[in-house]
Amino acid sequence: MRTIDWVDAPDGGPAVEIIDQTALPARTVLLRLRTVPELVDAIVRLAVRGAPALGVAGAMGVALAAASRGTTSGLDAEVAAVRDARPTAVNLARGVDRAAAALDDGVDAVVAVALAVRDEEIASSAAMAASGADLVTTLAGPAPRILTHCNTGGLATVTGGTALGVVAELHRRGALAGVVASETRPLLQGARLTAWELGELGVPYRVAVDSAGPFLMARGEIDVVIVGADRICANGDVVNKVGTYAHALGAARAGVPFVVVAPESTVDPETATGADVPIEDRAGDEVLSVAGQRIAPGAAGAVNPAFDVTPHDLVTAIVTDRRVLRP
Amino acid sequence: MRTIDWVDAPDGGPAVEIIDQTALPARTVLLRLRTVPELVDAIVRLAVRGAPALGVAGAMGVALAAASRGTTSGLDAEVAAVRDARPTAVNLARGVDRAAAALDDGVDAVVAVALAVRDEEIASSAAMAASGADLVTTLAGPAPRILTHCNTGGLATVTGGTALGVVAELHRRGALAGVVASETRPLLQGARLTAWELGELGVPYRVAVDSAGPFLMARGEIDVVIVGADRICANGDVVNKVGTYAHALGAARAGVPFVVVAPESTVDPETATGADVPIEDRAGDEVLSVAGQRIAPGAAGAVNPAFDVTPHDLVTAIVTDRRVLRP
Repeated sequence: MRTIDWVDAPDGGPAVEIIDQTALPARTVLLRLRTVPELVDAIVRLAVRGAPALGVAGAMGVALAAASRGTTSGLDAEVAAVRDARPTAVNLARGVDRAAAALDDGVDAVVAVALAVRDEEIASSAAMAASGADLVTTLAGPAPRILTHCNTGGLATVTGGTALGVVAELHRRGALAGVVASETRPLLQGARLTAWELGELGVPYRVAVDSAGPFLMARGEIDVVIVGADRICANGDVVNKVGTYAHALGAARAGVPFVVVAPESTVDPETATGADVPIEDRAGDEVLSVAGQRIAPGAAGAVNPAFDVTPHDLVTAIVTDRRVLRP
Repeated sequence: MRTIDWVDAPDGGPAVEIIDQTALPARTVLLRLRTVPELVDAIVRLAVRGAPALGVAGAMGVALAAASRGTTSGLDAEVAAVRDARPTAVNLARGVDRAAAALDDGVDAVVAVALAVRDEEIASSAAMAASGADLVTTLAGPAPRILTHCNTGGLATVTGGTALGVVAELHRRGALAGVVASETRPLLQGARLTAWELGELGVPYRVAVDSAGPFLMARGEIDVVIVGADRICANGDVVNKVGTYAHALGAARAGVPFVVVAPESTVDPETATGADVPIEDRAGDEVLSVAGQRIAPGAAGAVNPAFDVTPHDLVTAIVTDRRVLRP
């Protein structure tokens, strides 16, 4: 199953098909997006999310604009609309730009670029899964108990994933005892999406509150921690979903390997250290409400850093689609 | 305002009055409990909670049995019902036993013991607040930014509190810049109860997800961490609400003082280290649902340790009502 794919159905013409992540885990809803406004809406409301998946969505958005109209001219507004759907996701703009560069070559050429972006993404996930699984087996033995944070599976890519792709590969190899999915407050991507993906894969798993991770490591229940990354700095500092750093501290104290899995495009040699990365502080309401219900007093405020920085000395290894780094 | 108190209203006779913690923070509901079954029900459904407050509830339960019937004989069943309302809370049984020991001396004597338990609890909170505030000012300067975890305020005691009592005292002294209240998943005592208490006190505060704590410390936004304790071992290891350990790791890495505030009765010289303490693993549904809404897939399981162990080397100081320990 692919999070996002290109379909050209006999009954309806070209479309982008996605799994609607806002409906998970309660329902698995496939959306067939036939117009650019439909695709933009899906991106804005996070029906499709995850940096690699957004790159594919960007390229497919340009392809959809061209294929649905049967022309590659006069598409500037639609191309811009896709590009701007989420301005902070650099992968989205990169995907749009790659497909748009082929507009002079005709509709089929644009679609071909979009499919190439998708296929490269799938290949990248497969490469990370294979070398990551090899590494984890070396570091943590033939049947490790893994802790992971946030969602880094097929839902964030096209299929497979980054950190969760390694988990899936270990499961395929029969080299995995089980997974603890850290729930990942405030938006609960772990409890909602990672749990759903692990269930689909048939991997034995349990959800834990984020703050339990370090104690589960201290209690001897975790053999390796595997997470993704949003940016990897030149010195090996890792920027990732808030909570990653706390897990890294727990892993270091317990002597548990801490492995980061992310595509090579995440490595940013232009940024020296984590201190140079602006960390997005998001709206307090994400913290103060859960599943639409207010949990804190009406007058409460919140501090809500969306990411944190894990210093490189806490990272055992970084697996990309091309190499294994040891900061 | 007292979390629990004894009232003898002209209109209705003796009663135990509590703030119903299950209604917070949405509503502040005072319950006047006139019978032992009403009090037991309040304890069981966590309308009154917190180890010190439960000690008072236990003593007042015996006093209520005697005063409501106007006799001290034939109360065995009611005394046992209070004692067994929450079997794991040692303070509850201790409070019951102290009051029950006065049954031979008549109704007034039993009520006097219950009031003494209450007053000792209030005095204990005041002592911790004073010496804790002195210590925090020494460690973290005249206007510290404090992070605290779980609920350790007047709601867990009678008034004042343990760690949050220190916060309140610093605020009274004008020696506090502000507080980050860690939300404390799964049951959100921080976001619900601590936030409410801080609002009532007029202390500037923000709620954060538990996993943000270590990063906020690394980012230089926290000057001292103050938490309570459920048990302090002979070697100084601290057993407290899950998440405490992760905050302690973050504090140690950031060079931020980590202070534990708890009554002397929490110190347990019979238990050598944290490894000797059985940690309660609670029902997974506390993790898998929030505010009555399921967040994880239907087939998901959870691992839910309610407490964790903070090794003594991560603890800067332990403040009790009688002394300051430096493990």
